[in-house]
Amino acid sequence: MANFELTREFVDKLKALIENQDNEGVSQILEDIHPADIAELYEELNIDEAKYIYFLLDDDRAADVIIELDENDRLKFLKALPSDVIAHRFIDKMDSDDAADVISEFDSERQQEVLSHIEDVNVAGDIVDLLNYDEDSAGGLMAKELIKVKENWSIPTCLRSMRRQAEEIDEVYYVYVVDNNGVLKGTLSLKKMLLSSADKHVRDIYYPDVISVGVDASSEEVSNIMNKYDLVALPVVDQVGRLVGRITIDDVMDVMREEAEKDYALASGITGDVEASDSVWLLTRARVPWLFIGLIGGLFGSRVVGSFEGVLDIYPQLAFFMPLIAAMGGNVGIQSSAIVVQSIAAGTTGLDSPLRRLIKEFSVAFLNATVLSVLAFGYNYFLGSPDALTLTVSGAMFSVIIFASVFGALVPLLLDKVKIDPAVATGPFVTTINDIIGMGIYLTIGTFFYGWLT
Amino acid sequence: MANFELTREFVDKLKALIENQDNEGVSQILEDIHPADIAELYEELNIDEAKYIYFLLDDDRAADVIIELDENDRLKFLKALPSDVIAHRFIDKMDSDDAADVISEFDSERQQEVLSHIEDVNVAGDIVDLLNYDEDSAGGLMAKELIKVKENWSIPTCLRSMRRQAEEIDEVYYVYVVDNNGVLKGTLSLKKMLLSSADKHVRDIYYPDVISVGVDASSEEVSNIMNKYDLVALPVVDQVGRLVGRITIDDVMDVMREEAEKDYALASGITGDVEASDSVWLLTRARVPWLFIGLIGGLFGSRVVGSFEGVLDIYPQLAFFMPLIAAMGGNVGIQSSAIVVQSIAAGTTGLDSPLRRLIKEFSVAFLNATVLSVLAFGYNYFLGSPDALTLTVSGAMFSVIIFASVFGALVPLLLDKVKIDPAVATGPFVTTINDIIGMGIYLTIGTFFYGWLT
Repeated sequence: MANFELTREFVDKLKALIENQDNEGVSQILEDIHPADIAELYEELNIDEAKYIYFLLDDDRAADVIIELDENDRLKFLKALPSDVIAHRFIDKMDSDDAADVISEFDSERQQEVLSHIEDVNVAGDIVDLLNYDEDSAGGLMAKELIKVKENWSIPTCLRSMRRQAEEIDEVYYVYVVDNNGVLKGTLSLKKMLLSSADKHVRDIYYPDVISVGVDASSEEVSNIMNKYDLVALPVVDQVGRLVGRITIDDVMDVMREEAEKDYALASGITGDVEASDSVWLLTRARVPWLFIGLIGGLFGSRVVGSFEGVLDIYPQLAFFMPLIAAMGGNVGIQSSAIVVQSIAAGTTGLDSPLRRLIKEFSVAFLNATVLSVLAFGYNYFLGSPDALTLTVSGAMFSVIIFASVFGALVPLLLDKVKIDPAVATGPFVTTINDIIGMGIYLTIGTFFYGWLT
Repeated sequence: MANFELTREFVDKLKALIENQDNEGVSQILEDIHPADIAELYEELNIDEAKYIYFLLDDDRAADVIIELDENDRLKFLKALPSDVIAHRFIDKMDSDDAADVISEFDSERQQEVLSHIEDVNVAGDIVDLLNYDEDSAGGLMAKELIKVKENWSIPTCLRSMRRQAEEIDEVYYVYVVDNNGVLKGTLSLKKMLLSSADKHVRDIYYPDVISVGVDASSEEVSNIMNKYDLVALPVVDQVGRLVGRITIDDVMDVMREEAEKDYALASGITGDVEASDSVWLLTRARVPWLFIGLIGGLFGSRVVGSFEGVLDIYPQLAFFMPLIAAMGGNVGIQSSAIVVQSIAAGTTGLDSPLRRLIKEFSVAFLNATVLSVLAFGYNYFLGSPDALTLTVSGAMFSVIIFASVFGALVPLLLDKVKIDPAVATGPFVTTINDIIGMGIYLTIGTFFYGWLT
């Protein structure tokens, strides 16, 4: 299929062929295109054009395209199709994990309908099993399809069984070895199979040190384990160690990407999973809530500043440095919360206790605060600013940096402790609170120095 | 090896064993631990303890630990070892891509020394080849080790050759099919091999639609392709299509994670790759540069505000809303730059032209600006603020949101155009400029309304 690049010309050509109902032309143009690319193409088509193409694809490719679609686009598209078509043309052709993902997006009535149209009761049963797991857990990520062999089998028996099992599975990375109770014992690499002679048994050549996760492990845990140990597939076991499924790296890559994008979006004050290509309405809806928080915070901040009207009336120069102090508090707070959030997400927090971590954050803040307040002092001193102003700006800079650092680190640590995603603490939330408190600190120090020195 | 969790008790126990020179005890305690976990453990040890452990590991495990170490820790550790030990104990035991990564961290004199101690000239040659590629390109990510078969071979010939080739490779995901000139023709899945009869030829059963990249493709391109098409290995070809290497998913996961962490760090105003567990000095050094930019910007902003001293003298109330307007500009700017940066990184910018994207950003900004300035108007109106203040705050809010949105989207688009990483545009840089311009807009509007209405 070579490498395909979606261009405006291609889309226009395709749309013209569809308009002319040129079945052969459309089939031909789509023949060499990967389902992932067809899914991308779908975003440029309207629902009728998408349906037209769908009827020209064979079942396997049509199912693959459906899996690759954006959740929103998929729902919109499947809504237009009857339940039995969905069951036969799509769900039957998918791995159990993909099928469960697609079905889980329907409401429970529709789920029931689609499931009732699946002919093979084993397939339907597997999907129902998977639907019961939290989608952010190992159980929610795993597929039921895997190749397992028993440890007491001979290599020829093993090969025969593998051939039969392999027919139903897209990609085979590992063969899992279980005992008679189905408890996971180890793995057998395909490479090992290639290199072994026929008179051996599975128990002679399998690799017993297998890394696995429980069905309840979180998707973050799964992604950290697969990343750390460089695994392409990870077996999932139930509470008594029986093999119940396996997670493949492609699903985990999606999780990783989504996690990273979500953290990034939260740090930037964006809710939900939006892209530059989404509609104006979706983009606005993703951004307004955080701006609203910023507005509330800012209005509250204006009351704090307003309560210092007296000193601002007499010394309006104090206002000049307000944006500087606010920005400094904001920047420092984002930095320290970001470092903590990233470390929690990557599982690289080390062995330090929370107290030790705060002491460390304090030390970093102290160094930063010293450097920056000395620079600010130098600036005002050489510019010949009034002494009270020079001392206020430097003093407030120092205090605000220390406060914002420790506060920025403390909030995500606390949130993590009470099992709330610490990423919500980054971005506008921390910035806004730091802004308000920063203004309070600055003007309090200002009132003190101006009262004392003038 | 089961799943290992690093605890303080474990580290203390190990340190005690090392102190007592208890070789047997240390070997025993480390026996069941994965190299990736030993690498993590290294971070808790001093250099002498780390060396002590290193001499107790067999060569393969010692090499694996070295690969898993942080770049900084690795350099520090390898510095203490002579070049011939590095060549024989480590480089010889690694895949070519890992070996090239490790060697590339040395200065050129040391590189020369280590390479001269590698006995197999083919291995040394492969490493030298890889060292010539940019580390952020497909050539820099790929390994030379792969299994290739010729299209005109019979299955038994193919199997014999595969057995011989497989001995040198850790994991086999795909077997590549080439013609007599070494040009990549397709792949042969191990599953297909398992299912095929012996009288077939490679050309009968291979899969010709293989996705590949050129050696010069960027690491971002590689990661987007592997992610999009769900590949665990990607063949790399030279300018005339000859197969020169393959990239495996574990290396790409590292790239993805690093990219995401780097973008996140830049958006949060942190330079370089730091973690909460790094030293106070490293953390400070990663944070001060951006704070310094913020300081310069803030001081410049104080001059802008200072130039409005006249109007602030008469109407000090204007100062109350300065932090609100500054924060709003900052938040909006970060949002729009983040969306653009993420879309560029993920390759999901769609087919819109830059002009269309800016028009869209403008529409989103217009909606946001309308909602928020109406809210701000309502607040001041019901609070009975002076008309001039009410109009100034709402008017400035509207203008600043529009400006910051478009500016925030424009900067990364421009940077991307001139091939600079657009991620540097997020975070403190955009915020600082938006702060300054926001203050200018606010006080200009304030001067106008107060001059007009009072």
